[in-house]
Amino acid sequence: MNYLFDFYQALLTLKQRNYMEMYFIEDYSLGEISELNLVSRQAVYDNIKRTETILESYEQHLHLYDKFKKRTSLIDEMEKTVSTKGDNDDLLKMINQLKELD
Amino acid sequence: MNYLFDFYQALLTLKQRNYMEMYFIEDYSLGEISELNLVSRQAVYDNIKRTETILESYEQHLHLYDKFKKRTSLIDEMEKTVSTKGDNDDLLKMINQLKELD
Repeated sequence: MNYLFDFYQALLTLKQRNYMEMYFIEDYSLGEISELNLVSRQAVYDNIKRTETILESYEQHLHLYDKFKKRTSLIDEMEKTVSTKGDNDDLLKMINQLKELD
Repeated sequence: MNYLFDFYQALLTLKQRNYMEMYFIEDYSLGEISELNLVSRQAVYDNIKRTETILESYEQHLHLYDKFKKRTSLIDEMEKTVSTKGDNDDLLKMINQLKELD
């Protein structure tokens, strides 16, 4: 869920992002989030569950996390292969630039 | 707009996708789309304009097209560099796999 949040958080509302961040990243409990935001624990729970469904639906449609995993694994393999060859500074630099794009 | 449609069409409704595809890919006119769908020309126009705004907003938030362009340019550069070196079959294969992910 952390990864999905990472990829698609820009598409969430401020409130959805706020609850998700407190719950999954800063590790607050549902009770703490409800107190800090002056809403019921049930409202926080419902919002988080709904947001999880939204994030999973984005992934089903866009596959960003899935493609990221495949690309990362390929780039790592490429880096290992390049490292075994000589005269590779230019390629290693490009591989790093590719990594930074993700 | 064709590229944005390509990246984000999975997030559109069936009707939005249908109009966009007819207009931007199959090159139907607004009049033809309105006749074929039994709706007014204005309704088609409004729907397409609204969808364009939605696609631009997705790109502003996720930058998939922008990242794709940067990644493609890096991968092309990498391919050229690898081609000038010997013993490169393994790397060229990985580069092709990377391309296929986009």
